[in-house]
Amino acid sequence: STEDLDLASVYVSDAQYNRNICVDTSPRAVKLYLLYNHWFLKVLLYFFILLDLSLAVFEEPAVLPVPSWATMLVELLCLLVFTARLAHYAKVIPRDKFWKDAKNICIIVVLMLTLVDMIIYGALRAADCSALRWSRVLRPLLLVNVTEGRQLRRAFRSIRNALPQIFYVFLLFMFSVLIFSLMALKLLGKRGLKTIDGSPYFTNYLEIVFDLYVLVTTANSPDIMMPAYNSSFVFAIFFIVYILINTYIFMSVFLAVVYNNYKKHLKEEMRQLVRAKRHKMVRAFGVLQEPRGEGLEPGVTQANWNQVVRLVRPDMSNAHRELLWSVSDNKNQGFIGKVAFVQLADLLNIEVITLKSRPHPLYRLCPTLYLSGPSRLLCRLVQHRAFVILFDLIILVNAVFIGLDEDNPMIANSEWVFLALYLLEILLKLYVFEPRAFFSRHNFWNWFDTIIVVSALIATVINSAMKSSGGYTSRQILDIVFVLRVLRLIRVVDSIQRFRTIINTMIRIGPAILTFGQLILVVYYVFAMVGMELFKDKVKFSEDPDDPEKLFCGNPRLRGTAFAHLNYCKNNFNNVVSSFILLVELTVVNHGFAIVTHASARIFFVLFHILVVIVIINIFVAFVLEAFFVEY
Amino acid sequence: STEDLDLASVYVSDAQYNRNICVDTSPRAVKLYLLYNHWFLKVLLYFFILLDLSLAVFEEPAVLPVPSWATMLVELLCLLVFTARLAHYAKVIPRDKFWKDAKNICIIVVLMLTLVDMIIYGALRAADCSALRWSRVLRPLLLVNVTEGRQLRRAFRSIRNALPQIFYVFLLFMFSVLIFSLMALKLLGKRGLKTIDGSPYFTNYLEIVFDLYVLVTTANSPDIMMPAYNSSFVFAIFFIVYILINTYIFMSVFLAVVYNNYKKHLKEEMRQLVRAKRHKMVRAFGVLQEPRGEGLEPGVTQANWNQVVRLVRPDMSNAHRELLWSVSDNKNQGFIGKVAFVQLADLLNIEVITLKSRPHPLYRLCPTLYLSGPSRLLCRLVQHRAFVILFDLIILVNAVFIGLDEDNPMIANSEWVFLALYLLEILLKLYVFEPRAFFSRHNFWNWFDTIIVVSALIATVINSAMKSSGGYTSRQILDIVFVLRVLRLIRVVDSIQRFRTIINTMIRIGPAILTFGQLILVVYYVFAMVGMELFKDKVKFSEDPDDPEKLFCGNPRLRGTAFAHLNYCKNNFNNVVSSFILLVELTVVNHGFAIVTHASARIFFVLFHILVVIVIINIFVAFVLEAFFVEY
Ligand code: NA
Repeated sequence: STEDLDLASVYVSDAQYNRNICVDTSPRAVKLYLLYNHWFLKVLLYFFILLDLSLAVFEEPAVLPVPSWATMLVELLCLLVFTARLAHYAKVIPRDKFWKDAKNICIIVVLMLTLVDMIIYGALRAADCSALRWSRVLRPLLLVNVTEGRQLRRAFRSIRNALPQIFYVFLLFMFSVLIFSLMALKLLGKRGLKTIDGSPYFTNYLEIVFDLYVLVTTANSPDIMMPAYNSSFVFAIFFIVYILINTYIFMSVFLAVVYNNYKKHLKEEMRQLVRAKRHKMVRAFGVLQEPRGEGLEPGVTQANWNQVVRLVRPDMSNAHRELLWSVSDNKNQGFIGKVAFVQLADLLNIEVITLKSRPHPLYRLCPTLYLSGPSRLLCRLVQHRAFVILFDLIILVNAVFIGLDEDNPMIANSEWVFLALYLLEILLKLYVFEPRAFFSRHNFWNWFDTIIVVSALIATVINSAMKSSGGYTSRQILDIVFVLRVLRLIRVVDSIQRFRTIINTMIRIGPAILTFGQLILVVYYVFAMVGMELFKDKVKFSEDPDDPEKLFCGNPRLRGTAFAHLNYCKNNFNNVVSSFILLVELTVVNHGFAIVTHASARIFFVLFHILVVIVIINIFVAFVLEAFFVEY
Repeated sequence: STEDLDLASVYVSDAQYNRNICVDTSPRAVKLYLLYNHWFLKVLLYFFILLDLSLAVFEEPAVLPVPSWATMLVELLCLLVFTARLAHYAKVIPRDKFWKDAKNICIIVVLMLTLVDMIIYGALRAADCSALRWSRVLRPLLLVNVTEGRQLRRAFRSIRNALPQIFYVFLLFMFSVLIFSLMALKLLGKRGLKTIDGSPYFTNYLEIVFDLYVLVTTANSPDIMMPAYNSSFVFAIFFIVYILINTYIFMSVFLAVVYNNYKKHLKEEMRQLVRAKRHKMVRAFGVLQEPRGEGLEPGVTQANWNQVVRLVRPDMSNAHRELLWSVSDNKNQGFIGKVAFVQLADLLNIEVITLKSRPHPLYRLCPTLYLSGPSRLLCRLVQHRAFVILFDLIILVNAVFIGLDEDNPMIANSEWVFLALYLLEILLKLYVFEPRAFFSRHNFWNWFDTIIVVSALIATVINSAMKSSGGYTSRQILDIVFVLRVLRLIRVVDSIQRFRTIINTMIRIGPAILTFGQLILVVYYVFAMVGMELFKDKVKFSEDPDDPEKLFCGNPRLRGTAFAHLNYCKNNFNNVVSSFILLVELTVVNHGFAIVTHASARIFFVLFHILVVIVIINIFVAFVLEAFFVEY
């Protein structure tokens, strides 16, 4: 029946996409589940999650200020969408399964706490009291706990599994920092040394611990060493031993521990995924199987199989589907057994590249012309190695022209020549190669070329039109033209085989970098929200160059510090955008920005360093290492 | 005959220590070779290599100035020793093998070039011309090419093998830096932005390339970004993308490539070592074998075997040797065949820990007393878990006391109490455990404890004696006392099992870190010698706080720079010690120190970064990773 086919297609598609959802088997639940997995609803959900997260741009402290009733209305709308999505999910799976799942409980708690927070905030603001939107730190939890956040949850599980081992190494590392600090206090504290700004050097134990912790990140090297080194070069030995042990050995040990756990965990997860996939396919088989007389195992007929595959992958061509069937039913029985059926989930994921060369459309239109002597010569020329080398040379000449001054009219006009040449190249290739094969999904560079050249053409035409009409050139469009011009040069590396392998590996890392991007987004968001509440307006940036407060970033405590001197004022927590950029800077080099505000604020920065640099960045490095070992 | 036994023992000992030397088989050569391997001659050789290297301390630009005839006389002596050693080696191996070995040729060339350089230098100095001791950069080659530098040569081979792959990734990385620089020039160069010191921002392409290269090392983050970020936060995206690609992805790819090559190379080297070892043992068997009647394979008698083992390991006890024989001759035939004989090289390397508990010397002296009730109770108390916890608590209290002010007489006297307690602990343990077992080679922590406590006792006694006699306390002795006191605290981590595994892994990394130390020494030495010739006295450090030149480190070009402002004047190439310390700083954070002198000097710093940070540090990290994967 259609209901059985629907149910079977649900199992197959869950197996194909590694979804681990225990769908209710009633026909109504199956219909709702098909709707639940519709791409449009998923896109809508992610749109509202991003909208909810991006509210931080408009809320106090805002980049673009908007009345708080407006942001709260939008947030209410988001909450409604999330509730509707959760209610939809509750209809799809059995009730007891729903309430046993921590994900759903987490979403419900977040939604309720957000509502409570909004009510309290509204009431306090109505009464003109100061209020705090503390539930904002919970927002990223929605991104983690929605049904589609599987990869992200896997990354978090990977971190959680590595934590106990990291913790023990971290204790040992902190012990080492404490011992070295004690030694520094005893060796250097009593010598009456002074830092550059004249304050006593290494006299307070907790300050030393913090300074030496920052030294591990190499952010305050060599500044922290200079007063001791200036007094005697023997003290340099102390710092060198410290850096060897704590920066080089301990940081490598952290990477080793994280990498080891990552590999172990990855293997275990893969095993579980394969098991779950098999389980789903066996259930689909159970729904579809038909008896086949005595002595024979039950099987699935080709007709049923076809219908299920058509439901799971409506876009698949008949030829492709028949290929898959003939792979499964290799004895040509019109029936397949359990083992052959279970393979289907993997078969569906294999991308079949149609190797059968289609004739070129021009050949179909006018065969005599396309096969004539000059046309064949052209095809041979374009496919020749020299054609590639010629265009590599053109790219290199183009690079030199880009570097020259574009105010020179000769140089400015040369851009048209280069654009024409690149367009000609693409057209020639399209003349020679079948367009659908040329633009097939795995031809990354053809897509890259065409998009870059066509957008450069459009941007350049718009730019010229604006220039000739009003004489006014938009800076933004000019920027885009420049960026596109430079990006075009990247193509040159693709002609060298060695580079292509390295770049292909990097491109294949791409999708996983997206997961890491989400992971980082979640952690940054939480730290940004907390940071904004704690450090908002402690450091002020002024656009006005004559502002007297510019010398100390609007905070008298910063007068004369290196922070103000180096004009770091814009590195602050005054809105969500500058918070995010500051957190990126802290990831790269954990400068002691903390020193500028209250000493207790250092805890924030040390926590951030432990979580982001020691844990997440190491997982990222472990991931890149593993990806390269598999590819190479 | 004795000659055969000598030859066989040479083969066995070469196999045991993985020496790969083709000794001449003549009795005279064998005798000379035994002398060549004498520990005293090796120590003497390393002493003269170190002496030769440390001449840099006394030569111009000197830490401790000495007339140049004196250093040249010492260097001549060193050259003589190296020549003698090489001549000795030439007598040991066949002539054609000697001249085919690149190591020997290299040493001869270095010796000759050094001699030529010394003659030229001497002549030029005699004629009062300026002269350059260029052969000093060749000195570390001696360390690499002496027969004993096997591990170091292996490390260099490992680097050489990784170079082609690193090179391709490096090209791609540089291409990426160049493309980003071009984009920065086009996007930011025309906006009229200014750096903090008012110079134009991102207008010179080569400057941008250098600045962005330094950004990869994170040394100039966020300074390099601030002018653009202050003008608009959109530009921060450019820098974030740059750091993601070039710092995080490319640097991880470098690590992946180095690690991959390291593993592959390690496996190949291990295979070759095993093959060479087997080959040596087969030759030793060929010398020792005796026929054993018809139908039986030839073998080695126990008498011959015993004599060879006695020659190879004169320190081995009879019991240990008999154990090894019984392992080899497991059928008790009095003869062993080829297979059993070949195993000997590995058997010799196995450390046999005598598990048979020896009676305590006090028990032998006075059994009744040692076995009496109170004595047994004491033994049980010391072996109890509470005893360990008690002393951990004492250590923690001690840590607090160290942190307090030692000018307080109560605190100062408490040191005697703690010292007494630690001594008591060691004495009690020696009462309970058999001393030779307590101080056996694998009991790292017992050795550590005893050495630290006894030296602390001696230093404290000397310190008190000096204080009470003259009232004058030597700062150096006080420093030693402090360091020893703090080091004592390390013991506390050993009581926790988890920490012990991590620390034991780190201790086992120790010997290999020595090889890396030599590798780094070689590279640093070459860079220090070149750096001193190029940058000597460009930056001056003055001890006098009132020196007007202090504000710009004695170089007018540094007036107003951050380098002078941050008081980095002692980071210079004015002598070999400060050069080495500067190179360590550059390894940690490759600050653009180059900016301070001529722009072409940047090449020096980029080269150093590529070689030390991208190649050597990554090999070190790969090594630590591998060591931890094996242990965990
Ligand atoms: Na750094």
